[in-house]
Amino acid sequence: MIKAGIIGGSGYTGGELIRLLLGHPQAEIDFVFSTTRAGKSLSSAHPDLTGITDMLFSDKVNTEADLIFLCLGHGNSSEFLRSHDFAEHTKIIDLSNDFRLADDASFEGMQFVYGLPELKLDAIRESKFIANPGCFATAIQLALLPLAKQGLLNKDVHINAVTGSTGAGVRPSATTHFSWRNNNASWYKPFTHQHLGEISESLNSFDQQIGELFFLPMRGNFSRGILATAYTQFEGTLEEAGQLFSDFYEEAAFTQITEDPIYLKQVVNTNQCHLHLHKHGNTLLVTSAIDNLLKGASGQAVQNMNLMFGYPEKTGLELKASIF
Amino acid sequence: MIKAGIIGGSGYTGGELIRLLLGHPQAEIDFVFSTTRAGKSLSSAHPDLTGITDMLFSDKVNTEADLIFLCLGHGNSSEFLRSHDFAEHTKIIDLSNDFRLADDASFEGMQFVYGLPELKLDAIRESKFIANPGCFATAIQLALLPLAKQGLLNKDVHINAVTGSTGAGVRPSATTHFSWRNNNASWYKPFTHQHLGEISESLNSFDQQIGELFFLPMRGNFSRGILATAYTQFEGTLEEAGQLFSDFYEEAAFTQITEDPIYLKQVVNTNQCHLHLHKHGNTLLVTSAIDNLLKGASGQAVQNMNLMFGYPEKTGLELKASIF
Amino acid sequence: MIKAGIIGGSGYTGGELIRLLLGHPQAEIDFVFSTTRAGKSLSSAHPDLTGITDMLFSDKVNTEADLIFLCLGHGNSSEFLRSHDFAEHTKIIDLSNDFRLADDASFEGMQFVYGLPELKLDAIRESKFIANPGCFATAIQLALLPLAKQGLLNKDVHINAVTGSTGAGVRPSATTHFSWRNNNASWYKPFTHQHLGEISESLNSFDQQIGELFFLPMRGNFSRGILATAYTQFEGTLEEAGQLFSDFYEEAAFTQITEDPIYLKQVVNTNQCHLHLHKHGNTLLVTSAIDNLLKGASGQAVQNMNLMFGYPEKTGLELKASIF
Amino acid sequence: MIKAGIIGGSGYTGGELIRLLLGHPQAEIDFVFSTTRAGKSLSSAHPDLTGITDMLFSDKVNTEADLIFLCLGHGNSSEFLRSHDFAEHTKIIDLSNDFRLADDASFEGMQFVYGLPELKLDAIRESKFIANPGCFATAIQLALLPLAKQGLLNKDVHINAVTGSTGAGVRPSATTHFSWRNNNASWYKPFTHQHLGEISESLNSFDQQIGELFFLPMRGNFSRGILATAYTQFEGTLEEAGQLFSDFYEEAAFTQITEDPIYLKQVVNTNQCHLHLHKHGNTLLVTSAIDNLLKGASGQAVQNMNLMFGYPEKTGLELKASIF
Repeated sequence: MIKAGIIGGSGYTGGELIRLLLGHPQAEIDFVFSTTRAGKSLSSAHPDLTGITDMLFSDKVNTEADLIFLCLGHGNSSEFLRSHDFAEHTKIIDLSNDFRLADDASFEGMQFVYGLPELKLDAIRESKFIANPGCFATAIQLALLPLAKQGLLNKDVHINAVTGSTGAGVRPSATTHFSWRNNNASWYKPFTHQHLGEISESLNSFDQQIGELFFLPMRGNFSRGILATAYTQFEGTLEEAGQLFSDFYEEAAFTQITEDPIYLKQVVNTNQCHLHLHKHGNTLLVTSAIDNLLKGASGQAVQNMNLMFGYPEKTGLELKASIF
Repeated sequence: MIKAGIIGGSGYTGGELIRLLLGHPQAEIDFVFSTTRAGKSLSSAHPDLTGITDMLFSDKVNTEADLIFLCLGHGNSSEFLRSHDFAEHTKIIDLSNDFRLADDASFEGMQFVYGLPELKLDAIRESKFIANPGCFATAIQLALLPLAKQGLLNKDVHINAVTGSTGAGVRPSATTHFSWRNNNASWYKPFTHQHLGEISESLNSFDQQIGELFFLPMRGNFSRGILATAYTQFEGTLEEAGQLFSDFYEEAAFTQITEDPIYLKQVVNTNQCHLHLHKHGNTLLVTSAIDNLLKGASGQAVQNMNLMFGYPEKTGLELKASIF
Repeated sequence: MIKAGIIGGSGYTGGELIRLLLGHPQAEIDFVFSTTRAGKSLSSAHPDLTGITDMLFSDKVNTEADLIFLCLGHGNSSEFLRSHDFAEHTKIIDLSNDFRLADDASFEGMQFVYGLPELKLDAIRESKFIANPGCFATAIQLALLPLAKQGLLNKDVHINAVTGSTGAGVRPSATTHFSWRNNNASWYKPFTHQHLGEISESLNSFDQQIGELFFLPMRGNFSRGILATAYTQFEGTLEEAGQLFSDFYEEAAFTQITEDPIYLKQVVNTNQCHLHLHKHGNTLLVTSAIDNLLKGASGQAVQNMNLMFGYPEKTGLELKASIF
Repeated sequence: MIKAGIIGGSGYTGGELIRLLLGHPQAEIDFVFSTTRAGKSLSSAHPDLTGITDMLFSDKVNTEADLIFLCLGHGNSSEFLRSHDFAEHTKIIDLSNDFRLADDASFEGMQFVYGLPELKLDAIRESKFIANPGCFATAIQLALLPLAKQGLLNKDVHINAVTGSTGAGVRPSATTHFSWRNNNASWYKPFTHQHLGEISESLNSFDQQIGELFFLPMRGNFSRGILATAYTQFEGTLEEAGQLFSDFYEEAAFTQITEDPIYLKQVVNTNQCHLHLHKHGNTLLVTSAIDNLLKGASGQAVQNMNLMFGYPEKTGLELKASIF
């Protein structure tokens, strides 16, 4: 039984981690650390937990826990790790972007592995420190990795991805105000989103030539999920593309190729990534859908936990979709 | 041509006032006062105005304007009026709740009239100072006034009304966060909403006995509009009720009785109030729908302006509904 | 291991049953009968099941199954049962309203028990034939049963409940058209909704006097969930009311009393019912929230299955909420 | 005063036309033809019109009207025109796609002009027969025409555009079912949308070389509006691009260049098209937003009417945005 601590449990990813661990047969929540809510019940922040757990937020960090999930804002994980002295056996999964890039992966004696199981399965199993991928980064990489591996991503790639409002966190802002976001559509950070860094590193890890990535991120007027489209020129047939993807994801626990065109909600509240291939002329369109808080964050973190502790990858992650 | 100034023009009601006055043939915007946005264009806060007006927010108040609209937070209007010395001829329409109740209506020599045209048409025409009604208060009063006038509201009245998120203002908060409000439903201030005060005063103005008002306000997951239902015991027939309402609203410019059941969107982006009557046994159900920002705020303010300055009541207010 | 068949598996409740049974450790899906989709994969109708099951819809009914779930339109269950001859051991859970009322409960030698576990726990355990309650009926009964049992529901009760669009089924209609329902609000069947029948029978089952029920059902612009409010006059204190509810639901597996006011989404995608009590003067307001497709339909059906087959009530029903 | 008839007035575009003409100072509705609703009031289909007009749907077509708007399903306009013999002076604006392409523009002696005022101002003024552009086609052309005119659109163009559900018409379908569309995202007809035809013809009308158009249309979970993005390689500076656009749209009545990034709702319920330019490296991103039912359909039709009858282009089209 894994004893896991959660640092930063009042936000969206922390809440999802709590829910997942409460339903996980091989893990238990050791503590949920929150400076602002210490002493209050978890259900005060996450009312769905009423009657399910009586646990309180804590202002203590157990540095002897088996595993620590860091659900802190970007930039705060390194500060937190510097100021806490964890036991030798304590493993760490960080959900921020602090340690994802190769240049950041080595930190105070800890060597972080990029926690995308479809790409780094064995390294994750052997690792003590995981940098959990970004949400857009997960959806987009899963759409492109099979092509990159074969050197078939050497032309320009055009990516559009729309994300739910939970991607922007629990703190209210102008663009997550209901009166603004409801019935609205807009883009942000065109061609410069910070996830391009981790995406590029992964795609380039096969030592193949990679084309330019044009990525336009969109704000969707829904709460959760990411629908990403990516297209590029591809000489082969649709069947050949399908075979590449099937082969690449043959062992993947949560990544599925669908025959029918995808719609976003079919993966919401699950850890699945659904991929769909479509060809028009020489243009191959890959569509990818994930739940940004699960496969894009907390679900993938638990998947990584399962791998690190030797449990079957799907343990505690066979979730009922909330498809409607 | 009325020269009108708007105090507090960057919020929702200020924005709607700007839009209405820009389209009004007998009024022009003299200035839009904003401490936070002075020097910036109106379209920086209200981007739909791009290419429609080049006006800037101002940090100056013209105390010689013909008319001042106060779009300040509740409690701030009195402070503003105390610190500005307006000309003798300057009229004032206040959209806050500072002067709506009889006890508050007399302020520093100004005598405010409650600006519900269906109730106070003549007084508004004669008045220099208007306390513009609240949004819930407008929807609910229009549903009940014809009964109150006839002394037929002497039994308990059960009121449920759901409002759009714009009712909570432009400042982000937990319950206007898109991730929370989207697909959600909840109530607030059960049986104690502050608009009960103005509602009660109006209903009691006919010197008839009024039953107890049970009012449950709901937060809706839409941006604009209020749908209110109110039912009470009523001995007469549906036709008799219909006649009462038709008579009461015979001269009303914007309040319509509909034969078909109402849905909220049929009044959105208009200054209309739609009322529907339904009878089951001895229970009379009155349904009322308004746009909370128009008939519930800025539209009614312009309606009051028209009355105060002797223009036809509908001037500048024949708006295309945004029904979809 | 229960071998269960689903009749009518392409709609919303059938889809939820499939999802729940796929995750149930003590049940397996024997067949999913669909006349329109026979031969196609379950995932063709429910794409979230891609990679999770390869099962096909069937045009055969196994009359030897341990359990049959009927997910047919109201009125069609009786016809279906008449034309199929099930084995002596086959149990039946019907999700329509065909057998819920006392007058309808006896059908062709089958005696249906009303499947609300909070009310009929022992009878359900002993029963072979279950009439699964309606969604509104579940939310409203759970809000009122503790009062009814004590004879404290003898005054008028005022009920407002708003439901998601999935309550109207998968067949498109004018009021489930997105262009109409989005951002909209409306009522239907005021004071005459068909669920009043089952609600009244349950409340009257304690041989106490019950006041008149005024029930106004609303269409919400969200997909799933019901938020119901019910208030009545209550002489006791809030604490006394709380004690009544705690006592009544002490053994309930899924019905929780919350301290904080409820919002709808906190129960979505779960089998929970959350209840909240609020008192203003002598008015007791009870708020109830359920997922209309789970506690209001398929989840409660599985809860009934667990009871009928002697499994712990929560088996397969500890679901992660989709709270955002 | 233009006497205008509307053929097919119970759908979305017909409804918007009715609203616009009721508010138009130089036009009056002669009749609204509807086979299914003849004899019923316009407000039975469009309840916002309650108290605004008492007009009924008619089963008669006045072939002497000054102007006929055809709001029929695609493919039905030609059939309708064949079976009706309009007066010599009767002008026609067709909102379907029947006569938009050069090959279809000549029909039974009528020569249809493509009614995009920003492209064909003079021809529209002289014309009796207008083929009103498609909604996607309008948004996308306005984003690209200034570049096409200068021969600067000779590289690949990558277009993504998301549309509201009203684009799919009033007839319910699987993808306009609220339970499906709410909180969802998906694409359709990738790279093959039928509007590509009219877009290409317009872009090619400048006798410049045009690059390949990659157009991915998306279904948005909102009711109205289109947000389109288009990017291509552009050697010049952002200022140079801005100048091109300003010059091209100098005389345009409704097309505005915005400095700030656009969000969809800022044009909803108006006839405006907002355009925004952004440059990253050599990539020029043009964003375009319109209301699909106004500038994308009925608003543009009235704009064309104004031009054809010699009225100022904005007559009756200065609409208050429904920005929230």
